[in-house]
Amino acid sequence: MKLASIKGGRDGQLYLVNKQLSETVSVADIAPTLQAALDDWATVAPQLKERADALERGELDTKKFEQSTCESPLPRAFQWADGSAYVNHVELVRKARNAEMPESFWTDPLMYQGGSDSFLAPHAPIVMPQSDGFGIDFEAEVAVITGDVPMGVSAEDALDHIKLIMIVNDVSLRGLIPGELAKGFGFFQSKPSSAFSPVCVTPDELGAAWKEGKLHLPLLSHLNGETFGKPEAGVDMTFNFGQLIAHAARTRPLTAGTIIGSGTVSNKLDGGPGKPVKEGGVGYSCIAEIRMIETIQQGAPVTPFMANGDHIKIEMLDESGQSIFGEINQTVAITG
Amino acid sequence: MKLASIKGGRDGQLYLVNKQLSETVSVADIAPTLQAALDDWATVAPQLKERADALERGELDTKKFEQSTCESPLPRAFQWADGSAYVNHVELVRKARNAEMPESFWTDPLMYQGGSDSFLAPHAPIVMPQSDGFGIDFEAEVAVITGDVPMGVSAEDALDHIKLIMIVNDVSLRGLIPGELAKGFGFFQSKPSSAFSPVCVTPDELGAAWKEGKLHLPLLSHLNGETFGKPEAGVDMTFNFGQLIAHAARTRPLTAGTIIGSGTVSNKLDGGPGKPVKEGGVGYSCIAEIRMIETIQQGAPVTPFMANGDHIKIEMLDESGQSIFGEINQTVAITG
Repeated sequence: MKLASIKGGRDGQLYLVNKQLSETVSVADIAPTLQAALDDWATVAPQLKERADALERGELDTKKFEQSTCESPLPRAFQWADGSAYVNHVELVRKARNAEMPESFWTDPLMYQGGSDSFLAPHAPIVMPQSDGFGIDFEAEVAVITGDVPMGVSAEDALDHIKLIMIVNDVSLRGLIPGELAKGFGFFQSKPSSAFSPVCVTPDELGAAWKEGKLHLPLLSHLNGETFGKPEAGVDMTFNFGQLIAHAARTRPLTAGTIIGSGTVSNKLDGGPGKPVKEGGVGYSCIAEIRMIETIQQGAPVTPFMANGDHIKIEMLDESGQSIFGEINQTVAITG
Repeated sequence: MKLASIKGGRDGQLYLVNKQLSETVSVADIAPTLQAALDDWATVAPQLKERADALERGELDTKKFEQSTCESPLPRAFQWADGSAYVNHVELVRKARNAEMPESFWTDPLMYQGGSDSFLAPHAPIVMPQSDGFGIDFEAEVAVITGDVPMGVSAEDALDHIKLIMIVNDVSLRGLIPGELAKGFGFFQSKPSSAFSPVCVTPDELGAAWKEGKLHLPLLSHLNGETFGKPEAGVDMTFNFGQLIAHAARTRPLTAGTIIGSGTVSNKLDGGPGKPVKEGGVGYSCIAEIRMIETIQQGAPVTPFMANGDHIKIEMLDESGQSIFGEINQTVAITG
């Protein structure tokens, strides 16, 4: 089934959406919000499933589904932990600044604790006080929402705790990252509010594309109307979502509604750094990555970061061309 | 007024507690949970205040307040951001490993994004799979809960957004910190679930002790029944809570119910590193700090980290000796 949180209140109002993303129906009588549904998933999920089946059969009194009326599926969450599972992306970043990557990065996942209290709506602007020096970037990623996960869960068992899947724009301020990471406490100001897709879906909606804790479809990023990236999210993902969840849960339990991100999706090309879409490659899921390639190949970055009015659209299509999660559709708005 | 979340459901049930922490009364008719109260604070706070006044006048049908029945005031929160405002503590940590501290640390707050989905109850055990190599430590700190804070708030205006104050044990796994920080993404596994005091209070409850965004009273830590630390939380706090909130809100708004921590409370002594309580000093608010002193003075740490059965009690008394927030009262329980 497919779920959305339509605007209304701090946590939105829970709706079911049909597979074509054309019709929607309230499920307020089952659970008022997605967090409420996740808090009691074992009881609520079968009721939602029954309603979703009726929706697909055309038996319900629906209204037209408008993606622009959506909040992120969890407008605020109790946890957002973002991995960096495409390790070749990390290796590239390091290469661009002539730094070695520790071997352990191939076996021990990188993960940061993100702010989860104020996510953006999928069609909301990215409001920033300035662009100069901030290095505003998008990061296209896949994310999962878990149920309650016990401390010490194994990577294999962790897969059973994945309740919902969505995509995310993990907005990043590249200009603030080096200074923050040098302080040693990780990201904070350099990771402003993220936006998630209008719709999240249960794993069964993905059919064969959801396999071994990875989502095997291209993730499409369009920057100012041009295709910027279309890497396959199941390829070159060093750690699957089970491993990422197990990493997060090593020393504490995770509460239902925890969101775990994949990190920027990135594909190698013949062992190398890939190519832009216009040169026949699959491109990139963030601007920083193409700037790294430019730095390695030309000595300096060429592609600018995002400025006022720049637009990013992120989506994923199934094999028939149907949008699975709807579009993340955001424009940068500088207030300063 | 003083508020507590008594166990029941994922978010506890909101109660008012009298100043002596002896009597309590449900306020479920005003707001079922503390998060619900914070979501609508401007409306709810005056109603709670009226009830609190009636409680103090002995006009209500109360029940006995038992700290052991409490969850942390927010059993799960949408944000937990912990500063490191006692910069001399940071300087000491660095000194112990012969590292320079950047000058900017005196003007630009250190802050990390903490996990906020699974806080421990104030009297819950600290359950860990192992103690060997983990370096289990407590960290006694002051914390505030904010209302909604706009992006870009000034440090001065930020003070008006502080709704509630409490104390916290920011449990830390010292053995995991160097490895995690070396990876560059900040703390994750090295910061398991924190526990907060049974009671949080509005700033007016603190009278003259709450001044210029700092809490001017000793924070008491008792390790296995002996006083381990009693530093004054208003002394040597380089950044006040207004500055910490402004730092957190530079590139994103903060949602009501955001918790901001002070970092480990630490006092210098004549410009030096302080002294243990048994040598006439004010001691320390974590074991790591005394181990640093031991390393500097004797070449190696002597005081061990916490092991199975070790007990930590953290509290703060007002000038009359009355406990303000109740006790954080935790025992380490190793399951492995």
